[in-house]
Amino acid sequence: MAEATAPPELIERPSYPTALGASSLRSITLLGHDLVRDVMGTVGFGELAFWLATQRRPSPGEIRVFEAVLAALADHGFTPTAVVTRLTYLSAPDSIQGALAAGLLGGGSRFLGVTEDCGRFLHDVLTGVDSDLPTDDAGWDALALDTVIAQRAARRFVPGLGHHVHKQGDPRTPRLMQIAAEEGLLGPHLSLFAAIGRVHPQVLGKTLPLNGAGVCGAALADLGLPLELLRGFALLARAAGLIGQLAEELRHPVANEVFLSVDLNNRSVAPDPFVPDPPPGGPSSSTIPNTDTTGGRRG
Amino acid sequence: MAEATAPPELIERPSYPTALGASSLRSITLLGHDLVRDVMGTVGFGELAFWLATQRRPSPGEIRVFEAVLAALADHGFTPTAVVTRLTYLSAPDSIQGALAAGLLGGGSRFLGVTEDCGRFLHDVLTGVDSDLPTDDAGWDALALDTVIAQRAARRFVPGLGHHVHKQGDPRTPRLMQIAAEEGLLGPHLSLFAAIGRVHPQVLGKTLPLNGAGVCGAALADLGLPLELLRGFALLARAAGLIGQLAEELRHPVANEVFLSVDLNNRSVAPDPFVPDPPPGGPSSSTIPNTDTTGGRRG
Amino acid sequence: MAEATAPPELIERPSYPTALGASSLRSITLLGHDLVRDVMGTVGFGELAFWLATQRRPSPGEIRVFEAVLAALADHGFTPTAVVTRLTYLSAPDSIQGALAAGLLGGGSRFLGVTEDCGRFLHDVLTGVDSDLPTDDAGWDALALDTVIAQRAARRFVPGLGHHVHKQGDPRTPRLMQIAAEEGLLGPHLSLFAAIGRVHPQVLGKTLPLNGAGVCGAALADLGLPLELLRGFALLARAAGLIGQLAEELRHPVANEVFLSVDLNNRSVAPDPFVPDPPPGGPSSSTIPNTDTTGGRRG
Amino acid sequence: MAEATAPPELIERPSYPTALGASSLRSITLLGHDLVRDVMGTVGFGELAFWLATQRRPSPGEIRVFEAVLAALADHGFTPTAVVTRLTYLSAPDSIQGALAAGLLGGGSRFLGVTEDCGRFLHDVLTGVDSDLPTDDAGWDALALDTVIAQRAARRFVPGLGHHVHKQGDPRTPRLMQIAAEEGLLGPHLSLFAAIGRVHPQVLGKTLPLNGAGVCGAALADLGLPLELLRGFALLARAAGLIGQLAEELRHPVANEVFLSVDLNNRSVAPDPFVPDPPPGGPSSSTIPNTDTTGGRRG
Repeated sequence: MAEATAPPELIERPSYPTALGASSLRSITLLGHDLVRDVMGTVGFGELAFWLATQRRPSPGEIRVFEAVLAALADHGFTPTAVVTRLTYLSAPDSIQGALAAGLLGGGSRFLGVTEDCGRFLHDVLTGVDSDLPTDDAGWDALALDTVIAQRAARRFVPGLGHHVHKQGDPRTPRLMQIAAEEGLLGPHLSLFAAIGRVHPQVLGKTLPLNGAGVCGAALADLGLPLELLRGFALLARAAGLIGQLAEELRHPVANEVFLSVDLNNRSVAPDPFVPDPPPGGPSSSTIPNTDTTGGRRG
Repeated sequence: MAEATAPPELIERPSYPTALGASSLRSITLLGHDLVRDVMGTVGFGELAFWLATQRRPSPGEIRVFEAVLAALADHGFTPTAVVTRLTYLSAPDSIQGALAAGLLGGGSRFLGVTEDCGRFLHDVLTGVDSDLPTDDAGWDALALDTVIAQRAARRFVPGLGHHVHKQGDPRTPRLMQIAAEEGLLGPHLSLFAAIGRVHPQVLGKTLPLNGAGVCGAALADLGLPLELLRGFALLARAAGLIGQLAEELRHPVANEVFLSVDLNNRSVAPDPFVPDPPPGGPSSSTIPNTDTTGGRRG
Repeated sequence: MAEATAPPELIERPSYPTALGASSLRSITLLGHDLVRDVMGTVGFGELAFWLATQRRPSPGEIRVFEAVLAALADHGFTPTAVVTRLTYLSAPDSIQGALAAGLLGGGSRFLGVTEDCGRFLHDVLTGVDSDLPTDDAGWDALALDTVIAQRAARRFVPGLGHHVHKQGDPRTPRLMQIAAEEGLLGPHLSLFAAIGRVHPQVLGKTLPLNGAGVCGAALADLGLPLELLRGFALLARAAGLIGQLAEELRHPVANEVFLSVDLNNRSVAPDPFVPDPPPGGPSSSTIPNTDTTGGRRG
Repeated sequence: MAEATAPPELIERPSYPTALGASSLRSITLLGHDLVRDVMGTVGFGELAFWLATQRRPSPGEIRVFEAVLAALADHGFTPTAVVTRLTYLSAPDSIQGALAAGLLGGGSRFLGVTEDCGRFLHDVLTGVDSDLPTDDAGWDALALDTVIAQRAARRFVPGLGHHVHKQGDPRTPRLMQIAAEEGLLGPHLSLFAAIGRVHPQVLGKTLPLNGAGVCGAALADLGLPLELLRGFALLARAAGLIGQLAEELRHPVANEVFLSVDLNNRSVAPDPFVPDPPPGGPSSSTIPNTDTTGGRRG
């Protein structure tokens, strides 16, 4: 793209810093530790993932909460991500990495995004508090009440509130709060989230469940994990779930039946020409659809 | 995820409408036309892509502008998307689809997003005009001046303005305007974009180029293409470019050298433990990083 | 990974050759041509894709055959790739590139691979002929007969033979042969493929159709395109089709109904523990599944 | 694609079996267990991934070996997969899932495939033994000797043998063997692999290291994991590593420097027209490249 700005033969040697994996003739280090001596055989996978993401080793309690979150998010049955992974494997069985990647690509704003959205939302509320944070339920309830009222006034949803199946309560929410409390890790994000669960009916006039994706986001934020990567942890959990989906598809396939159930039920309809709304006026009137289907380049 | 809501043996048969491809024992139809009789051998690929996206057949002029946009966006040399496709092919030569998909995944907000952002931005301005749209340069300049002033007041950039290489003008911009004018397709989006190029120095105090990605977004919007898919057309153009990159990598490989230039220049640094900013206070003090690296589950 | 092998400050400057896009302050070149003067407005998209992949400009006849192939492969309705793109968009509407990439990842051995497999197969047969290639149907039939007999003896299928819908003939096959003949581009790959269609019943005892994916591979090989990239052209065609699928999903969505039709029809079954076949014996008897579900790390 | 084969209103309701996640109004089950009661807070992430992939709960020893493998494969610094994830994030920071998926797409035959290839290779040798498997080193050495000789005779490499950096031994190999032995899980795959390490110099005339990717494949195979998914476990490990790469890129970015180091060092060269080898003769002579660059559709 751009022209070279350096002399033709030599440039200052670039240098790319990393604290992650490094190898030499005889040793491999990871995060400044000897991989084979300090990591292999002593560090669990959840612990390692936390450590890689924060470059600090988590405490046993942090590991337990983190792995509880991963367990809560790993698999929800035939979600779009699971169906996509199975269909991609059906279509391209030569590429396990493609089937896994395709499923993870569904980990966006709608199905996995709540975890990230909820963690960010709670964090923004907390950082907006200029006094000390509350230290009792009454204080958290007051902050939560202001928060829900403000969202309502702005006609915005409260992330993490509501679930299309668990209308009377998502069982993951109290369980994760309990685990965090057991480990002394029920921090401000979870405290605010819990308070939102207590006070929102006063404002919204109905009781909605605090959903599992949301409480996971609150718990990850309380663990001090980077907010920009909360979705990343949901994706890591889902990667394990999708490998489970692939393993089941290999032995008890459903993808071809799913494909046929769509394909055999296709209904051929007439084209519906797209016209932008509002249709551009003035000089662009020449872009009004021409209907001469004999037209076209070689028409 | 959810419970079945239908009787156990039978449900109303679903039906999935589509105007795209359909097959029967003897024939294949596409967009309501017989594929082999009406499409193969008579419809160019750019024309077909336009037709598939809008379900209306473009005019010869629309095809020429559309293909000029695709040509402008197809390849820019060693962009991140091109490097990614080559490195993925190096690492997984067994999966051409993976190398292509990986490159396209770089087609997001920063490198390919300008096309979509600019088209949307111009469209929003135009739909916000309650009177008739301008019919002469003076009118467009007035609208452009209001627009740039408003963006400046809101401390927002004007999408499509500025380029890190073509600081004195992006050659694609006047050329695409000329082609659109030749075909009678220089519509309101391009007219407003051109006017922004004329008036912005009065507001910003410096002259910035109208970049090629931006003018492509304006041209696609004037073609009446769906704004939600403007990025999609940039991706289609890039798909052709990435296949070119793969073809060149096959015969004149550079990916391994690129990989080594990074890997051999890695600099191992000490871990930098992440602490959220601001660090959560109050109840979550227990999440302050523990520094006992002998800790962990099995420590 | 590896240790630096160069002096700490300076290394010989790397250099990455490319004949594709290049930019300078005032100009952009593509394939050695000035992009705005020689390409935009004069080169069609199919022509450009061919040019990028081969670094030679195709003739009008080559363009017509190439675009006929792309039209034949662009969209087949609700294929797994189309369903995957729609489901990924449902799940992650924030990332058009992800929905497109996910669909393309289905472009593997089973659904798009026939094009590549058939082109390669025919090429291998042709390069194995040490005499001159046949010049009349009788000669091609003789070569085809040897070929089908050899495949049958090796218990291998002939790529491109057979179709699950078009059992009495794929309409794309004769049409593409006709277009290639009209352009003087019916080369040895298509000639051999046609002959296989004529002679295989003598060997297989039944008449199978020459399918469209196969004839496309033969035509692309006759165009002198790189065999390693035949799948890439199928993916390029499909990229246009998938953008059409996305455009239709935006206005006439079916993805949520598809998702629900799977999810609501899930049947929860008991786990089926995997045991490798044959189960490893001897020293590894200790890996026989333990059934103590109270076990596990913290059990 | 195909025509409907069912009556227009009703079809037998499809049913998609799964033992993975399932939800109802009040409960969520995973692998037949209550998620919140039996999994969250008690099952580690490595344990869960193993359980999901095999539908059997691993023993503590199996978990330790499995997590040691994941630790060995999680991150190797600036591999192509890591560079790809960082470059994709640079280009599309709006899509974490895209950056992760792009990196995983590099998990193919060359960089992550050794784990799968080695596991499959050893399994094929073991299943080809019609007598009982060896029970002592002498017996394994004899089988290994036959194996290496056979590979050499067939001019095939032995998967897992050799490393471009750890030429005098990959430290992960003895460590993983030790961990497996400690847990009583040093099975036939690892035993054969170790024997190959002892005997190959007699055949190849030089001593090559048993590499870490290979020993991981042997260990996963001894754990009774599905061979088709060995690459999947390498991808899961890498997913954790790539999230670490993203986390580091967020705070200590290198991707833009990497991109510029390629882009600024591009060297524009003349196009090199592709001619298939061997060039097709006979009827296809018409596909010999035309050099009339003024040609093309509109030339």
